[in-house]
Amino acid sequence: MEKLLLTILLLTILSEGATQSDLRGKVFIFPEESATAYVSLIPRVKKPLKSFTLCLKAFTDLTRPYSLFSYSTKVKDNELLLFVNKIGQYTLYIGNTGVTFKAPPSPYAPIHVCASWESASGIAELWVDGKPMGRKGVRKGYSVGAEAKIILGQEQDSFGGRFDAKQSFVGEIWDVSLWDHVLSLKEMCASCYSGNLLNWQSLIYGSNGYVVTKPKIWP
Amino acid sequence: MEKLLLTILLLTILSEGATQSDLRGKVFIFPEESATAYVSLIPRVKKPLKSFTLCLKAFTDLTRPYSLFSYSTKVKDNELLLFVNKIGQYTLYIGNTGVTFKAPPSPYAPIHVCASWESASGIAELWVDGKPMGRKGVRKGYSVGAEAKIILGQEQDSFGGRFDAKQSFVGEIWDVSLWDHVLSLKEMCASCYSGNLLNWQSLIYGSNGYVVTKPKIWP
Amino acid sequence: MEKLLLTILLLTILSEGATQSDLRGKVFIFPEESATAYVSLIPRVKKPLKSFTLCLKAFTDLTRPYSLFSYSTKVKDNELLLFVNKIGQYTLYIGNTGVTFKAPPSPYAPIHVCASWESASGIAELWVDGKPMGRKGVRKGYSVGAEAKIILGQEQDSFGGRFDAKQSFVGEIWDVSLWDHVLSLKEMCASCYSGNLLNWQSLIYGSNGYVVTKPKIWP
Amino acid sequence: MEKLLLTILLLTILSEGATQSDLRGKVFIFPEESATAYVSLIPRVKKPLKSFTLCLKAFTDLTRPYSLFSYSTKVKDNELLLFVNKIGQYTLYIGNTGVTFKAPPSPYAPIHVCASWESASGIAELWVDGKPMGRKGVRKGYSVGAEAKIILGQEQDSFGGRFDAKQSFVGEIWDVSLWDHVLSLKEMCASCYSGNLLNWQSLIYGSNGYVVTKPKIWP
Amino acid sequence: MEKLLLTILLLTILSEGATQSDLRGKVFIFPEESATAYVSLIPRVKKPLKSFTLCLKAFTDLTRPYSLFSYSTKVKDNELLLFVNKIGQYTLYIGNTGVTFKAPPSPYAPIHVCASWESASGIAELWVDGKPMGRKGVRKGYSVGAEAKIILGQEQDSFGGRFDAKQSFVGEIWDVSLWDHVLSLKEMCASCYSGNLLNWQSLIYGSNGYVVTKPKIWP
Repeated sequence: MEKLLLTILLLTILSEGATQSDLRGKVFIFPEESATAYVSLIPRVKKPLKSFTLCLKAFTDLTRPYSLFSYSTKVKDNELLLFVNKIGQYTLYIGNTGVTFKAPPSPYAPIHVCASWESASGIAELWVDGKPMGRKGVRKGYSVGAEAKIILGQEQDSFGGRFDAKQSFVGEIWDVSLWDHVLSLKEMCASCYSGNLLNWQSLIYGSNGYVVTKPKIWP
Repeated sequence: MEKLLLTILLLTILSEGATQSDLRGKVFIFPEESATAYVSLIPRVKKPLKSFTLCLKAFTDLTRPYSLFSYSTKVKDNELLLFVNKIGQYTLYIGNTGVTFKAPPSPYAPIHVCASWESASGIAELWVDGKPMGRKGVRKGYSVGAEAKIILGQEQDSFGGRFDAKQSFVGEIWDVSLWDHVLSLKEMCASCYSGNLLNWQSLIYGSNGYVVTKPKIWP
Repeated sequence: MEKLLLTILLLTILSEGATQSDLRGKVFIFPEESATAYVSLIPRVKKPLKSFTLCLKAFTDLTRPYSLFSYSTKVKDNELLLFVNKIGQYTLYIGNTGVTFKAPPSPYAPIHVCASWESASGIAELWVDGKPMGRKGVRKGYSVGAEAKIILGQEQDSFGGRFDAKQSFVGEIWDVSLWDHVLSLKEMCASCYSGNLLNWQSLIYGSNGYVVTKPKIWP
Repeated sequence: MEKLLLTILLLTILSEGATQSDLRGKVFIFPEESATAYVSLIPRVKKPLKSFTLCLKAFTDLTRPYSLFSYSTKVKDNELLLFVNKIGQYTLYIGNTGVTFKAPPSPYAPIHVCASWESASGIAELWVDGKPMGRKGVRKGYSVGAEAKIILGQEQDSFGGRFDAKQSFVGEIWDVSLWDHVLSLKEMCASCYSGNLLNWQSLIYGSNGYVVTKPKIWP
Repeated sequence: MEKLLLTILLLTILSEGATQSDLRGKVFIFPEESATAYVSLIPRVKKPLKSFTLCLKAFTDLTRPYSLFSYSTKVKDNELLLFVNKIGQYTLYIGNTGVTFKAPPSPYAPIHVCASWESASGIAELWVDGKPMGRKGVRKGYSVGAEAKIILGQEQDSFGGRFDAKQSFVGEIWDVSLWDHVLSLKEMCASCYSGNLLNWQSLIYGSNGYVVTKPKIWP
């Protein structure tokens, strides 16, 4: 079974022109507004999610809405979406339903965001820079669909496409990780980038359009 | 007499479908706005109150009015009510009469609120995060009625009911305690959750609608 | 002569129903807005003042105008009045003429105010929380009349009366002291409440209406 | 020659009713708005200035325009004028031409201002509380006229007169010094009040109207 | 070859009336608004730039737009331009195309700005006071033209001219350095002013109009 999964993973990598890299200390720069630049991430395992934790770091000076992490299925374009509506206001979508959290603005500095959710209680959590921003309920009992396109840099309005430049991300993203369970604060710590679904240390990804990989400049 | 009270308490618990638990380190999450989710608390003793101290901790990002603690009798729906009108403005109702205190806003952080009142002087006090917010007079000589419904999560507009979603609490509440006397600051300390009427360490309560019990995430 | 003064003082106390108490560690609470609640203070000596220092501590959340200390004679209702026009703006009246000082707002905290004046130069000083707020001139050469009613909690619009609820004080006042000379900062220190005219340690006063005496809760 | 200057100085002192005093630790208080209160300062030497440094300390709560130091000749009323247009905005006039500097507001606190200028480059500097507020150019090659009236408390609209109450200074001024050369920051230090033209330690001055000399209350 | 370059450099210096100086500890003051005052800098080598780093320090109280560094060729007036649109908003132009960065305002204090760019990725970086303000893309694959006029104090709207007083710099500029490669933060350190193209320690420049050279007053 384990072997089968690895084989499927390998085939996916080949078919999508993706590569696997250790990106520790590196970032994706989205240097300008566009509807064409994006990075697609391929998870290690494709199965429905009854819970998850998503962490990433980002720097931007955008004041308009933008997508931080877009996970879309054929059925639902906002299957799992972390979206910033305006400075300090985050909406986490699960199965097309959104729940909104407020966080303090931190201009001129990168943010470290973690979002988690569990189906059993429907409880979603948001952590910004190591501090909890509350817990709210969304889509109790739901399962996040398995066959997904995961995109950084653009917000998918349909499966793997229909990007809107006005929702694109401009800036830098790094240390993106996805786990298939809920992590505690300690496990989410600043140095943790090794999710069992997405792992920055051995990331399988393909980049499209004007995306630049560079060493990170923030500590 | 002592035995009789315990027997009455036991009967109440059984009749209301309530349970008794040690909730130390746990919180009630009210995950979304509703007119249906609430927790009803059953006090250890039911007798009129000539004075009291109420303490609780809460996290919310609400900017609209909401109820923190609603204690209603058949005669007066706001027999003892701790209500937030807007960020940093608390009204304590005693026998349907309110007295308002101002407190500094503390966005993105939980608050620790204590309110006390004594009939003899009518003096009500509010403490927020260990700091006094002044003393004011209300309902001197009054007795808070004994046969009450105590509700977290909703504001009672009649005895045990007529909830308004627009006054519901959305967020987390924990360490709720009620004493039948006025406590000093030292007694109200952060670690004290053992009121003689309501005691977080052995709380008798029933929960209704979408309410989730989880470990607390703030220190 | 000394004996005669003491005799007069005693007679005054008796005739006005006043008592003499050590109020160290205690405050007067004015629990609600009214035109009836006040404390009248009886000075140890009644003679015209060629200079004075007045110190007191107070907590309030009022944003409207209010009186902190009202000293009225039959001739002039604002013979010596410390009045707050709005948050951070104090007017000191001498012989019905006012001089205004600005001070930083300190919400949610008590203030320690000292005002002094000397007839020879007309110089009035205001100190808030131990910091000078400047010196200004008022009523050079004047003498503050001796036969006065001293009122806390209300502003006298005539001798001992004509109170206006909209100028009443709501909150707490303590450590009120009056000296018949100008004090230096060191002498005005936080622990000093022993004026030779009004002395919190042995205060002669009468209280009227809804006024409550309680231990102080601020350090 | 030295003797001649001293003789002239002495005659000036006598003719203008001025006195010479050590004012260390003392301030001039201008207790109220007027067009009559001022202090005239008599410099030790009267010769045209090819450069200068002016330092003084002041406290005020004025928000309207006011003069800090007015040096007027028969030909030009704003021969050398340090003027505050509004909080945090200083204009230095040389030979009737102004150059404006911005400084951070420091409410409820005194300021320590130094201004310097040199004819050769036309460069004027402003220092507030020991920090530079920039350098700008004004009146390159000019000489500041010698036969001047120097006034504190009022702004001269003609030689020694035509005062406007609405530009008068209300507050306290002390440690006024004037040098006939440009000083470095170290020389301008807080304790330096011994200019060779105006020297607070042996100041020759005459005071008019309601001006009070008192010990300083700020450190 | 090395000799030839030095000879050309020498000839350029002579033909433009420029001098070579060690300006460590010195600043250029632009004392007033004008369309005539500027400093022209002559780089050590004239060749097209595939990448560069530019650092400088500046103090100003301007709130209108102004130029910090204007590098113009016959073909493009904004070949390499560092421009401030308003407080805290910088635009870096490469080959007439601009990319904008936001930085925190720092009133009453000088700023230390570094901008870098590399042709291969098109990535431009801005650092203010040692902190990164993000990376953005501009003119990927371009070469910055070699035969340029470099001007401080004015913005060139044509090759070496057409200055607009309303875009002129008023204030002080120092420690200007230009390198023909991208530097890391450590190399950009506060004490580094020795670019291989422009070097504050041996700067070749000519000054025009009202420009004053003075010792710096900020540490």
